[in-house]
This record gives sequence, C-alpha cells and structure tokens, in this order.
Amino acid sequence: VSTLVGDLLERREILPEQLYAVGVGVPAPVEFATGLISAPPMSDWETYPIQDFMSRAFPVAVVVVDNDANIMAFGELRAAVEDVNNFIFIKIGTGIGAGIICDGKVYRGNSGFAGEVGHICVDPNGPVCPRCGNAGCLEAMAAGPAIARRAVEAAQTGQSPILASQMEARGGVLTAEDVGAAAATGDRVSIRIIRDSGRMIGEALAGMVNFFNPGLILISGGVSNIGPQLLSSIRQAVLRRSHPRSTENLRIEYSRLGPEAGVMGAISLALERVFVTDDTRI
Amino acid sequence: VSTLVGDLLERREILPEQLYAVGVGVPAPVEFATGLISAPPMSDWETYPIQDFMSRAFPVAVVVVDNDANIMAFGELRAAVEDVNNFIFIKIGTGIGAGIICDGKVYRGNSGFAGEVGHICVDPNGPVCPRCGNAGCLEAMAAGPAIARRAVEAAQTGQSPILASQMEARGGVLTAEDVGAAAATGDRVSIRIIRDSGRMIGEALAGMVNFFNPGLILISGGVSNIGPQLLSSIRQAVLRRSHPRSTENLRIEYSRLGPEAGVMGAISLALERVFVTDDTRI
Repeated sequence: VSTLVGDLLERREILPEQLYAVGVGVPAPVEFATGLISAPPMSDWETYPIQDFMSRAFPVAVVVVDNDANIMAFGELRAAVEDVNNFIFIKIGTGIGAGIICDGKVYRGNSGFAGEVGHICVDPNGPVCPRCGNAGCLEAMAAGPAIARRAVEAAQTGQSPILASQMEARGGVLTAEDVGAAAATGDRVSIRIIRDSGRMIGEALAGMVNFFNPGLILISGGVSNIGPQLLSSIRQAVLRRSHPRSTENLRIEYSRLGPEAGVMGAISLALERVFVTDDTRI
Repeated sequence: VSTLVGDLLERREILPEQLYAVGVGVPAPVEFATGLISAPPMSDWETYPIQDFMSRAFPVAVVVVDNDANIMAFGELRAAVEDVNNFIFIKIGTGIGAGIICDGKVYRGNSGFAGEVGHICVDPNGPVCPRCGNAGCLEAMAAGPAIARRAVEAAQTGQSPILASQMEARGGVLTAEDVGAAAATGDRVSIRIIRDSGRMIGEALAGMVNFFNPGLILISGGVSNIGPQLLSSIRQAVLRRSHPRSTENLRIEYSRLGPEAGVMGAISLALERVFVTDDTRI
C-alpha cells in the first residue's frame, strides 16, 4: 500500500512530506489507540504495527487505522446518512462484520471488538468457526465461503445442474457470485442458498435490533449484491424476530456509498484527526 | 405513587412546591422526550401520561420518566461503577430487560426501545411471547414465570418431590423463589431449571457481547438471586458463545447497588435534569 501511495504521489508531483494524513481500514478488530490489529483473518498480521509502518513511510502524516466496517460506517455517516444518529453498517463478504454508529460517533466498544457480529452463534450444532473456534458462527454459516461451499455440494450431488456446469467451467470451484448468477437464471437451489444466508443474517440482526434499536441498517460487502433474495430475506427475518415496536421506524437498505464507503470513511477519519483531535499540528 | 410521595412530604413538613425533581422508572420502554410508555406489561398503561400526571401533582418539579433498567443502569454508573464506560445492566424478573451505558451515558436507541433484550429469540420453536407475539423470546423462555411454569410441570409429573410438596404447601402455585429454595436443598430438577435459564440468558448476552463489546455486565432483578447456578451458567454461556477476544476484559457480576440501583438512578437522573439540562430553572 505504501508503495502504491508513493507512486501516486510521484505521479502527482507531491512530496511524501506533503502528505498530511493517512486513513487505513483493515478487515480485523483494531485497538484504536495503538492501531494494532487483533485476530486478523491472516494470522501473520496479528499485532503487525501498521500505524508505525505508515508513520515511518510518511513521517509528516497523521496515521489512523481502524476496522474496515467502522471506517465504512463512518463514511456513510459523513457523506450519505443525514437523518439517523444510531445505525448499523453490516459488511457481508468473506467474513461478516459491523460498524456501529451510536449518537453520531463510531462506537468501538470497550477494547475495539464492537461489531464482531460474524461470531454471533446462529446454530449451536453448526461447524466450528476457523477464526474464533466456537460452533455455528454467523460468518461460518452465512458468509461468502459458506455460500460457495453449499453451492459446491449442490453441484456435486446433482441438485443443481446449472451450478454443476458452472463449476466445471471454472475448473472445480464456485464462488458466491456464481450462486448469484445461477439464482438470476431462476435456479431454485441457488435461490434457496441465498435465502438461507439472508435468513441467518437477519436473525442475528434481529437480536441487534432488540438490543440497539437502530434507525437504519445498511447492507454492504461483496456478497450483499448477489441477488435481491438476500436483502428481502434479511428484511423478513428482522421483521419476524424483532420486537414489533423496534422496527416501526427501521429501514434496512443497501449501503448508500457502495464501494466508496471505505474511501470516504478513511478520508473523513484522517481529516478529523488532522483538523480536530491533534492540536499539536497545523 | 403521588399519594405516597404526598404523605412522605407531609410527614417531613415539606410543601409540594418544595419538591424540585421527580424521577420515575417504569417496567416498559419509554419515549424519553415525552415520558410516554410503549408496550407495557399491563396494556391499560399504554400511552398513559405519567409525566403529565406527576407534573400536575407536583407543579414545581421537573419530572423525568425512564425505563426501569435504564434508570438502574444509570444508578450503577453514578454511584458504583467508576472504571467502565460501556456496560450492560440486565434485569431478570417477571420480564427481562437491559439498560445500556454507552460512552458514559444511557443509550436509549432510535425510538426508546434499546435494551428490549427479553424479546431476543432463543428458540424459534418456543412458545409465543404474550408481550410481543413472536416465538421463543428469551423472556418467555427464561424469566420468572417460565421458571415457575417448569417447576409446576416438574411437581405435577413427579420429577421433583420437593417442588411437589412446596406446591402443595403454597396452595397449588410455585414461584421462581421456590425453585431457588429447592435448588439450595440440592434438588437436581430445580438446579437444572435454573441452569437452563442461565444458559439461555447467557447465550443471548453472548450476542450482545459480540456486538457491543462491553467491559462489564451487571445482573439484577428478582430472579437473579435464586441461586449461584444462575450467574455461573450465564458466565459459562457468555464465555462459550462470544468471540474469545471480546471477553478478555469482561466481568459479569451481580448488580453492585442491588435494590438501591433504581433509587440512585432516579435521583441522579432527576438531579441532572434540574441542575444541568433545564437552564430555565433555579
């Protein structure tokens, strides 16, 4: 990343010393004060000092590192959500994580682990989660790899000829996107796989709705767009499993900024560090 | 309540006009700005204007009405919890509700429904909840009436002679306290009933821990003291079902103020209204 940023600066004829702020989002919990990441998907990154590394690469810059879902939630807050102070931004991809906006601020929890909703148990008899070691985590049951795994099973057992031929064309593998493509052609098995994921995500969200009473839930991430069935199943499950009064004014929508959410969030977070928090600069 | 307060003032020779603040906690969600309660256990109280009533009874006083668990959480925050800014206060009695302290303030949610954790689904095949209409709510499965119902079944089916004789002595009814008393004598059925409740409450709390990453959970309410098995089962389930990193610095304890939590919370909330928020007075 620092090399890419260096190239970019060079092309624009900007000196590294002219870079005043760097915002970094990582797909793992972050101890915000130190910028250290915890329990990342790739264990080599555990306690890797990203913030220090970036500070050495860009010595003048304020560097801020945060969890990716927190950053995206903050981007939505600053650039797209004007009417709600309490909302949940949920990212569904290889993993599942949430950014929480509480009273108009990113809420990070007591030790930076808030929003680790991928590890909410949705099935005590489910498979062991490779990341936390518990059984039946939402992430292990409903995220991209789980969707792909069910699709491979459906292809191998002959339940879905469409998925089987896609898998052959792809050299023996399938992704969540392939399931979305098959669902778009009307493949019932693929639609059911997507609906099951949406239901499980919605059931976990219903617990968060009862606890947190948000005004808005934004759905995002690489898997969120695999088909309209996902959002509709999430909505159904949230409405079915939440206290009816908690959902009266609740909207559940796709991310407003899409892939720009992280960029806007990193920019906003870095800017606020430069201009607001750090009073020794400027 | 207003009559009791009137008597108390008379005995102390204080005029109603000398009462500057009234804090009221109610066992239902409250729209904080208006003091109106929503979805109360006794439906006659729906939209009853408690705040207006109290303001007419004590015309000089600032009246503030809030959910009881919110008030108790606030009492703990002001009078007993000094080291944690993010915590959950859970009240287990006839119902189950939570007060949420977020960044050192009571968090009420987008429409006053935050902390309605009694309506988190713990068993999709469970009984219909009489208060919200969904199936398998934590409250319907694990609160005082559910414990009593399971005890009556155990007495009637001969599984627990101790509960059966207690039930006869009480004229055909049993309470959660009776189950606690039987558990204290070593009655295995009663211990199992308490453990099951604790497990379900802990499983629901584990979801909140993954979402909210609190530093402390305080257990309170009439059912919380029925036996040490309840707290230990809650702890076990939270530890088993949460992300391990979220529980590293998490303490789960009994309420520190006990029955005083509500009193301290109502006083603190009312005082802050008088001395801080309302700048037209004094």
